[in-house]
Amino acid sequence: MRKKYLLAPGPTPVPEVALLAMAQPAIHHRTSQFSGIFREAADLLKYVFQTREDVLILAASGTGAMEGSIVNLFSPGDEVIVVNGGKFGERWGKISEAYGLKVNWINVEWGKAVDPSAVKKVLDEKPNVKGVLVQASETSTTAAHPVKELAALTKGKDCLLIVDGITGVGVFDIPMDDWGIDVLVSGSQKAFMLPPGLAFAALSEKAWKFQETAKCPKFYFDFKKERKNLKDNTTAYTPATSLITGLRESLKLIKEEGLQNVFARHDRLARATRAASTALGLKLLAPDSPSNAATGVFVPEGVDGGKLVKYLRDEMGITLAGGQDHLKGKLLRIAHLGYVDTFDIITSISSIEMALSKFGHKVEFGKGVGAAQKILLEGYK
Amino acid sequence: MRKKYLLAPGPTPVPEVALLAMAQPAIHHRTSQFSGIFREAADLLKYVFQTREDVLILAASGTGAMEGSIVNLFSPGDEVIVVNGGKFGERWGKISEAYGLKVNWINVEWGKAVDPSAVKKVLDEKPNVKGVLVQASETSTTAAHPVKELAALTKGKDCLLIVDGITGVGVFDIPMDDWGIDVLVSGSQKAFMLPPGLAFAALSEKAWKFQETAKCPKFYFDFKKERKNLKDNTTAYTPATSLITGLRESLKLIKEEGLQNVFARHDRLARATRAASTALGLKLLAPDSPSNAATGVFVPEGVDGGKLVKYLRDEMGITLAGGQDHLKGKLLRIAHLGYVDTFDIITSISSIEMALSKFGHKVEFGKGVGAAQKILLEGYK
Repeated sequence: MRKKYLLAPGPTPVPEVALLAMAQPAIHHRTSQFSGIFREAADLLKYVFQTREDVLILAASGTGAMEGSIVNLFSPGDEVIVVNGGKFGERWGKISEAYGLKVNWINVEWGKAVDPSAVKKVLDEKPNVKGVLVQASETSTTAAHPVKELAALTKGKDCLLIVDGITGVGVFDIPMDDWGIDVLVSGSQKAFMLPPGLAFAALSEKAWKFQETAKCPKFYFDFKKERKNLKDNTTAYTPATSLITGLRESLKLIKEEGLQNVFARHDRLARATRAASTALGLKLLAPDSPSNAATGVFVPEGVDGGKLVKYLRDEMGITLAGGQDHLKGKLLRIAHLGYVDTFDIITSISSIEMALSKFGHKVEFGKGVGAAQKILLEGYK
Repeated sequence: MRKKYLLAPGPTPVPEVALLAMAQPAIHHRTSQFSGIFREAADLLKYVFQTREDVLILAASGTGAMEGSIVNLFSPGDEVIVVNGGKFGERWGKISEAYGLKVNWINVEWGKAVDPSAVKKVLDEKPNVKGVLVQASETSTTAAHPVKELAALTKGKDCLLIVDGITGVGVFDIPMDDWGIDVLVSGSQKAFMLPPGLAFAALSEKAWKFQETAKCPKFYFDFKKERKNLKDNTTAYTPATSLITGLRESLKLIKEEGLQNVFARHDRLARATRAASTALGLKLLAPDSPSNAATGVFVPEGVDGGKLVKYLRDEMGITLAGGQDHLKGKLLRIAHLGYVDTFDIITSISSIEMALSKFGHKVEFGKGVGAAQKILLEGYK
């Protein structure tokens, strides 16, 4: 007997109330019954995205919304800046290049946040740049980029700030309208506490203006068509009904907890995880600009991180994430976003302590847990 | 947002596979579809009870099977010995007296096991005694009684050993046939990992002989009628179909894990809990004969145990049990039976550490967890 715990930076655990909603008998998508569910979910999405704009709901993974953000707003030959601080930054660039955009790469060391002055420099040098593409939270490195500062750079310019908020929206504060973000995208399997399968995208007025002249080819990810359908409480193509039914429930949970409380919870869990890691002598990958979605820590010298992740998952039932690319085998990524609370963090920290000891690393049992507990206590009156 | 953890000595958590089975559309109980499920469950019950005898399945709580064990085997005026080492021992006596039996009480200090020589003394002095009634695991005190030794005393005598195995069967080794236990009862919401609602009873050949002459009044708990119906893969009165459907699944899980492995797991979790409690300076209620079902610990001087249990449940989402009767407000009972594994124990210990600190008790965070981890590690290769 081995219970399973999903503590990866997506997919994240799904609350029982959403699971039960999704387990209900299938309903037809062209019915008022479904339209009502859809409308409620679409309205609640605005609350979580902190925007007055429509939030498009796509049957796709987050990458679909990323692609849509490019093909609906730009034309081949357009010039963009891509902040490349990890796998997902790189993805912005790859999509852009696939559609013939000219990419100005700003490479950022993994684990670091982009320096806004580096972006400003390119913007100043190249007035033709039409967009800045960045992650709010770069999941591969567990670093957060300074979205607010970047938004200040594109404001008033003929240039869009396009933000991948896949592991950011609903995790920490990214007030789209207040900061002047032009495109904000996310996905269901993160702070939205659902299985994968839905992507979201919200566009500012300025972005919708860009849409009118964008010439990249598109069909499925046609945002204009989606916006029109959204007003009729549906999607252009068959909506993923069960996921949207679950979405309504998970959004209700977020609303009930209160967005600022959700952010505070993620912050508390993230600080507890970082304190626990440090207490155990594990070095953080992103100590200076950590994302509250997940915490990347280097595995100790002499421990094979790939085998450690596999051991935790297959022997202990704890699914964490490892490192990617050049950090493969060297990193553990411990998630704390979504339907995650105090004892999930205690579970992941204690399992890491136990697994490390199995790998021959000297561990003082309970030391990381103890460091986490002190911070986690803040969550209780 | 507050996740809930059920770590009381019954009801215990229900595995997802059993929950899903019970969530299936209702079926009629007089169908071959249900008979098949019933048969499989009834056969698997024999495996868990370690008996060749039929295990009766009753729509009742465990107390129903206790009552049935008395009314089906004795007559008013019959003399029995009741081992009274807690609330449930006391219950044996109360049921016996309700039906006019003459009870020889053997009172045992809470937290202690009965001394078999005390039972032997009464048996020797009173050859008319027809039954010895005892708990394998006295849930109110978390002590285990020496069932094997007691069975040796009644063997060959015209006297039955009747064992309440409600928090014993499927928790630790109680080989009914091998030890010569005459009646063994249990309930669904314990090691059987189901919601409350089912009770089980198995009778030895000798017990069935007693049944032939027993004159206590009965109707619903008529074991002879139940045995006849069991052979036809049903119960005398409407069976609790959804619970029995879930029972088949949870019994399959026990079979798959292997009974000896289940016992070893409970033993490991229990030892970890005791070690953690001791490391935290919490005194065990039953240090000498602890049950592997749950661990009773005294709350520290100056802490109101009732408020502590309430705080853990309402503020932290952790349901443990408190003390009963004269130990009300003085005890915490931490369960480790049923669908419980490593990280449930870590959760309960860490929550106790955190709650105690909130109650002003000086706690070294992670100390109890660390002590538990060292033992819990035995469960991993």
